[in-house]
Amino acid sequence: MAEFGVQAGEFSISVRVYYEDTDAGGIVYYANYLRFMERARSDWLRSRGVDATRLRDEHSLMLVVARAQIDYKVPARLDDELQVSVAVKRIRRVSIELAQQVRRGTELLASAAVRVGCISALECRPRPFPSSVLGALR
Amino acid sequence: MAEFGVQAGEFSISVRVYYEDTDAGGIVYYANYLRFMERARSDWLRSRGVDATRLRDEHSLMLVVARAQIDYKVPARLDDELQVSVAVKRIRRVSIELAQQVRRGTELLASAAVRVGCISALECRPRPFPSSVLGALR
Amino acid sequence: MAEFGVQAGEFSISVRVYYEDTDAGGIVYYANYLRFMERARSDWLRSRGVDATRLRDEHSLMLVVARAQIDYKVPARLDDELQVSVAVKRIRRVSIELAQQVRRGTELLASAAVRVGCISALECRPRPFPSSVLGALR
Amino acid sequence: MAEFGVQAGEFSISVRVYYEDTDAGGIVYYANYLRFMERARSDWLRSRGVDATRLRDEHSLMLVVARAQIDYKVPARLDDELQVSVAVKRIRRVSIELAQQVRRGTELLASAAVRVGCISALECRPRPFPSSVLGALR
Repeated sequence: MAEFGVQAGEFSISVRVYYEDTDAGGIVYYANYLRFMERARSDWLRSRGVDATRLRDEHSLMLVVARAQIDYKVPARLDDELQVSVAVKRIRRVSIELAQQVRRGTELLASAAVRVGCISALECRPRPFPSSVLGALR
Repeated sequence: MAEFGVQAGEFSISVRVYYEDTDAGGIVYYANYLRFMERARSDWLRSRGVDATRLRDEHSLMLVVARAQIDYKVPARLDDELQVSVAVKRIRRVSIELAQQVRRGTELLASAAVRVGCISALECRPRPFPSSVLGALR
Repeated sequence: MAEFGVQAGEFSISVRVYYEDTDAGGIVYYANYLRFMERARSDWLRSRGVDATRLRDEHSLMLVVARAQIDYKVPARLDDELQVSVAVKRIRRVSIELAQQVRRGTELLASAAVRVGCISALECRPRPFPSSVLGALR
Repeated sequence: MAEFGVQAGEFSISVRVYYEDTDAGGIVYYANYLRFMERARSDWLRSRGVDATRLRDEHSLMLVVARAQIDYKVPARLDDELQVSVAVKRIRRVSIELAQQVRRGTELLASAAVRVGCISALECRPRPFPSSVLGALR
């Protein structure tokens, strides 16, 4: 089994698996990996000084996921302690490509390619990222 | 086992149990009964012509749960088809008391007493219900 | 805007958007589209006579999502009534490729390519689908 | 406003509020306080050496919530860092009464009385707690 550790330039958080995350199959429900990944992205943005609430109140903008491709390799289980990572693949004015992984120790459980875009909060139309956001994430 | 059927003046919806609702115990996760009950309340309000979105946009008010007491009797399981009911117990200017049940056929799985209040959308302070809401629910 | 209606050979369910499905952005939380899609798949399997509980109890097998790629086009909102569809793209002995859409009327909100696999319930190892499942889905 | 700090004999965890926890009202969805409280109970049980998985595999028993009464006082919001506590009120052979609070700093947002029971994993019938559990929690 391939080993995966923390990469250079990678941001990572710990996530504990609780009953709420599992389903009757005894494993983590497949949509919940996206919840874990959003927690990692939120903490990463916060660590870079990007504040979603202020972005909304001051710029009337929201960061949204435009596309997600996720590969499920090994299921996570109740009580597992997972590491959920974010790494930037590419930053453009209208979209940011992220690579995210969910690991249990050195074992890769799920990986995803996530494209984040920016929309106007009212009409939900695509907008370029403010330069403050692009600067903070580069 | 006591039998419970549709009561006079009771509003009821059907809810199917999917994987998302269950947990690794093989049964419906306890917080999700509150999700089912909120669906029943929303459909009940809609059936009475109370529109939460308009209440917010025009009156800057939100209906919120101020208190919930729920008794879990028999667990629901994957693929179950449940009936979730709402009955009004008491309506006052600042709070509405509801009785809600989750049943599987004639079997009572969970019952709750729910107190709904009204708050201002901005400061989240208690407000009396608009008379249009009180009229629609009586 | 392209129009999308019910396709030949397509299975579809209605899904109402409740508060539980939305987030503070005022739109449906991105992971919840996967919940809606799983509901459509479960109902589709049930309509074809494939019973996940029996598959587990009798064959010790579980159907799982191995990969999902989802494109978010237009956000869904509170109280929306959505149509969530399933169409078979390809069936093989070890994986089934599905195309799923979330629509609001004729407007396409999200589309996904979902690969479903089969694993042993105990060790969570990939297994070929039982011929009864393949027969029912063809 | 009353101030609430860590009590003697109280167990407490930190919970960050993410988008997944909020709803279109801009506040934490009411059922999700029960998710936060279950996380606190799970961590508290783990800290006392009570292992739900082993309880299930070795004793065929599950701990379940039999009753919850929750009072919602002040709504939590996106990005809030919450403290979620557990304190034992009473331990009996067939039920454990807990007091739980959700606080933001010294502000009390929600409080609950939670009764935990024990059921057989197969038939879901009430059982007395194993003495190992009672001993660990006293």
